[in-house]
Amino acid sequence: MSTQHADAPDVSGLSIGILGGTGDQGKGLARRFALAGHEVIIGSRNAERAQQAADSLGEGATARGAENAAVAREADVVIVAVPWDGHKATLESLRAELAGKIVIDCVNPLGFDKQGAYALPVEEGSAAQQAAAILPDSTVVAAFHHVSAVVLLDPEIDQVDLDVLVLGDDREATNTVQALADRVKGMRGVYGGRLRNAHQIEALTANLISINRRYKAHAGLRVTDV
Amino acid sequence: MSTQHADAPDVSGLSIGILGGTGDQGKGLARRFALAGHEVIIGSRNAERAQQAADSLGEGATARGAENAAVAREADVVIVAVPWDGHKATLESLRAELAGKIVIDCVNPLGFDKQGAYALPVEEGSAAQQAAAILPDSTVVAAFHHVSAVVLLDPEIDQVDLDVLVLGDDREATNTVQALADRVKGMRGVYGGRLRNAHQIEALTANLISINRRYKAHAGLRVTDV
Repeated sequence: MSTQHADAPDVSGLSIGILGGTGDQGKGLARRFALAGHEVIIGSRNAERAQQAADSLGEGATARGAENAAVAREADVVIVAVPWDGHKATLESLRAELAGKIVIDCVNPLGFDKQGAYALPVEEGSAAQQAAAILPDSTVVAAFHHVSAVVLLDPEIDQVDLDVLVLGDDREATNTVQALADRVKGMRGVYGGRLRNAHQIEALTANLISINRRYKAHAGLRVTDV
Repeated sequence: MSTQHADAPDVSGLSIGILGGTGDQGKGLARRFALAGHEVIIGSRNAERAQQAADSLGEGATARGAENAAVAREADVVIVAVPWDGHKATLESLRAELAGKIVIDCVNPLGFDKQGAYALPVEEGSAAQQAAAILPDSTVVAAFHHVSAVVLLDPEIDQVDLDVLVLGDDREATNTVQALADRVKGMRGVYGGRLRNAHQIEALTANLISINRRYKAHAGLRVTDV
């Protein structure tokens, strides 16, 4: 069932930039948006590594690579998929390029020890709120936290069977990001609350990692009754 | 699909006590466990109010009421469904009665303002961890956070269509609680990680409340690929 009404924006023409697109999560999202027909630009600190990642997305998934700054400047919508320890510095360096854009944060601040994953405390409350604090001239939306990179990158998997919780304080922006999630086969964007409730969505990734270990699965979430 | 193997414990004979069972969440769980054939004892500070709640569960759902202390003493497994602001004091007063038992905490520490619900900070990390700190001689498991009381209490709803994330540090106890969740028609218990990752599960209830408002739904979660 769609979670949007007739006012769902047409996002089919939006180009999507992915900062930190050489990591598995970034590459996986790049692959699925390219398969859905979007212009995708993979970003990295190193343009050559970005291009290598873009060339590795597999059959039917066309993308190009560029330095993060060029990606932030050129793409209509920008996904932040950098490692948590580079999150703050990367965004601080791209404030001007990201101004006026929707910035989708999918970063999960997690620590790992022998008992598995756990949520790291974040001064601003969450990675998404940190992004919003660093980027006052952008519209930050939190989404795509729980998508398994393994699933996204698996050429055998046609449908990505899960809901993407989309959080933000700007209705137009969350509608846009929900519509983007809907573009990926099997995926559905579901509004998930305001940015102040992003921490638990990011942290929930630690639980999904526990579930994956216990059940040898690539767990995702579906929201029932919606 | 069941999430347990042949070693799933037989929990059909366990009696279930519900502290704070006069609230909607407690009453809803009482109703469903009674319908599943369990002996259910609803607890309250006031035995008479407990009995009134027990008498109000609807057709086919038989339970009895008692003071919280008697419930804690008599029941095989005890669910804590008190309001967050009574959580600490209630558990501190029942330490002896709860010793040696599985205590299932389903309390969500939430605040509300005109923008909706948000997670309250908890010194111990989460309500479940607070319970574990107060009850060193009990085995605390976190579960049943996301079950809509409205759904549980609705006589028209036969199947409660959602997964219950079950968190804890003791495998035998989480297996038992998963098996208890499995007893409710439509419900499935899924292991969801250690107690240190309980905060985000409790806090996620704020997001579900946002989802319910946006979509006029009673949202629950299903875990995919498990």
